[in-house]
Amino acid sequence: MKIGICGAGTVGRGVTQILQDNHALITARTGKAIEVTVVASRSAPTDKIFKDIAYTADIVSVCRRDDVDVVVELIGGTTDAKVLIETALGAGKSVVTANKALIAEHGDALFALAAAHKVSLLYEAAVAGSIPIIKVIQESLAGNQVAWLAGIINGTANFILTEMAASGPTRTFDEVLQEAQALGYAEADPTFDIEGIDAAHKLTILSALAFDQPLSLPQVQIEGISSLDPVDFKFARELGFKIKHLGIARCQDGQLEMAVHPSFVPTTAILSQIDGVQNAVLVCGDAAGEILCTGAGAGAGPTGSAVVSDLIDLVQGTCSGGSLGGRSSALKPLPVRPVAEVASGYYLRIGVEDQPGVMSAVTSILARRTISLDKILQEDIAPNRSFIVLVTDPIQHGVITDAINELQEMPSVVAPVQSIRVFR
Amino acid sequence: MKIGICGAGTVGRGVTQILQDNHALITARTGKAIEVTVVASRSAPTDKIFKDIAYTADIVSVCRRDDVDVVVELIGGTTDAKVLIETALGAGKSVVTANKALIAEHGDALFALAAAHKVSLLYEAAVAGSIPIIKVIQESLAGNQVAWLAGIINGTANFILTEMAASGPTRTFDEVLQEAQALGYAEADPTFDIEGIDAAHKLTILSALAFDQPLSLPQVQIEGISSLDPVDFKFARELGFKIKHLGIARCQDGQLEMAVHPSFVPTTAILSQIDGVQNAVLVCGDAAGEILCTGAGAGAGPTGSAVVSDLIDLVQGTCSGGSLGGRSSALKPLPVRPVAEVASGYYLRIGVEDQPGVMSAVTSILARRTISLDKILQEDIAPNRSFIVLVTDPIQHGVITDAINELQEMPSVVAPVQSIRVFR
Repeated sequence: MKIGICGAGTVGRGVTQILQDNHALITARTGKAIEVTVVASRSAPTDKIFKDIAYTADIVSVCRRDDVDVVVELIGGTTDAKVLIETALGAGKSVVTANKALIAEHGDALFALAAAHKVSLLYEAAVAGSIPIIKVIQESLAGNQVAWLAGIINGTANFILTEMAASGPTRTFDEVLQEAQALGYAEADPTFDIEGIDAAHKLTILSALAFDQPLSLPQVQIEGISSLDPVDFKFARELGFKIKHLGIARCQDGQLEMAVHPSFVPTTAILSQIDGVQNAVLVCGDAAGEILCTGAGAGAGPTGSAVVSDLIDLVQGTCSGGSLGGRSSALKPLPVRPVAEVASGYYLRIGVEDQPGVMSAVTSILARRTISLDKILQEDIAPNRSFIVLVTDPIQHGVITDAINELQEMPSVVAPVQSIRVFR
Repeated sequence: MKIGICGAGTVGRGVTQILQDNHALITARTGKAIEVTVVASRSAPTDKIFKDIAYTADIVSVCRRDDVDVVVELIGGTTDAKVLIETALGAGKSVVTANKALIAEHGDALFALAAAHKVSLLYEAAVAGSIPIIKVIQESLAGNQVAWLAGIINGTANFILTEMAASGPTRTFDEVLQEAQALGYAEADPTFDIEGIDAAHKLTILSALAFDQPLSLPQVQIEGISSLDPVDFKFARELGFKIKHLGIARCQDGQLEMAVHPSFVPTTAILSQIDGVQNAVLVCGDAAGEILCTGAGAGAGPTGSAVVSDLIDLVQGTCSGGSLGGRSSALKPLPVRPVAEVASGYYLRIGVEDQPGVMSAVTSILARRTISLDKILQEDIAPNRSFIVLVTDPIQHGVITDAINELQEMPSVVAPVQSIRVFR
């Protein structure tokens, strides 16, 4: 099988390296050879692994070459990459991509195009790097009705949260973000990662697969991590939690919920142990129960490995059509649960003036809405100032929002109320 | 696709239940229906899920039925099950099995038979229940050279170790084993589970897949968990470890190591967090890095889910041949590293009489063999008696064995030296 690599960045180099280093092994395992015949990128790659491979700056021309059976799209973005993939599929060539934004935003049309041309569009590398979560949901859990899934699916955000939780915690979000940028874990413009957009792309893909849904990025509720304060990490630790940025999707009573937000995760849950740039996805199937997979979420080798696994599925002819395959146009979208009705436990941090009766006033606002409390603590922060910290039992978002609004109106509440959802 | 279920025990019921409950979902996802046409077991099943399914007590007769395309072998054991699978494959029917003992002991011949008849023999359910580790290694990591893998692959043993570590730890192995038996987590004869034989079966299968090897159960070094003492759990905790029963396989410098034994796992490693009857497998590929999958290791739903995933691969025609597929006869066995040369860190617990110079004598025995120490502690256990506890850096098994033998000869060493390997 002859492939054209479009994009000679980190992942393009990674894929080429794996196919060269493990050529004999892959050929022995599959009975067929996978050869990179051309690399396409805007400027000629200088890396020596490309030296014996034809080069072109005309990326779309790869789709017209007779010596290319499969196009690997690693240029990123949603404009040129879309044209490239459409051209390749239209030319009857299967495509492997790592492009989560493109799949999340335009996947349904692209899958339909692939089906119309009887070729495949594979994207294992688009979600969670090395972790084979697409295959696990699409194939290993194909006999299961998935109840919910939850994942740490953005390594940049997880690195920042891990650092903020460590040693103190005293460092602010901005300090840790700068460290992440210096280390190359966060981009110069980190918005996509820290505001949850990248995670929402990935959650959209996982939800579509797990719940047999069309891709529906606009339905994902998105909340980033930039409003987290060091003191939230301190209280999380005292209360037995870690703060993780989770993508969560759930199907309950025929309604779908999809959300990306910071979460208090109990330290007894494995998800809380996933630190640094690691990713993890936990899926709950009706038969299998809970399965968790964890590994590197990015990088030349890990993401390259996922691309190569798709190439091997192609060369062996073992791609499963699956729920996001050729039938995606036939999928019926489930109704989305109104945000106000989504239930969760909540951590609330309320900055108050120390006055007689303040705790009683706070708790009575909650009690009036039958919000019951799991944990409560009060801590002085300055003369005459303290935090009241509460963890509630699960309650609908609309109810807690009303309560927070009323708390915020109290004269003795002197700072914005911080609220963070609790994972289970 | 019509299937015959052979064996109406826990997993047979689980598979049938999933295929009934999720029939519409599986049909929608695969575009094809999977029907159970016959159930075969020694005595007629009374469970109502079988009431509309033909029954036969003549198990092998399932292989001759025109209304059976695929035989699901869930009778267990290595005699009748072997005849059943051979007959089915010989009759040109694919087989799905959960039988790790049979695959580990006779898999090579059975895979060759399947290849000769151009049918498939699938066994995702044979290792680690719900965890799709066969597919992950065979397909997702197919582009990787696997460096090593390590797994908690026996739920009974992990339950016992988790209980021994909890609350105290003061309970003996025998007490906890009895509890496990009362809870149904351990069998009346628990030998297979607690002596590591079941784990060795599974490790044999994983190693063959990961390292493209013929199945070689006799090469696995096996050590069970019955010699562990509560005091080892106490010291493990103090030193920052948990004790887990690991199956470990490694390929280094062209030599293969395969071993099942209790291990000190640092509490910072995710494997240490896998408790109770959960299973987990950690695989390190040269490109992907470390990937860990965890989930339920047994039970009707989890193991049934794995069987159903194989059935779905069959109905979709997406079974990968993979390294243990039709080419197993062509695989060349790697040389096995002599046990004496396998390196590991070691925990040593040495019961000594308190005498001047005993610590110096112990450490000089180690120093003479250039065994360096990572941690050391001494704890009184009775008047004039104490334990010297050491954790060494990695050292060859032959060297540590000599040192232990010399320690054992010391007049002031008053009890057998306990030694447990350290994981990394």
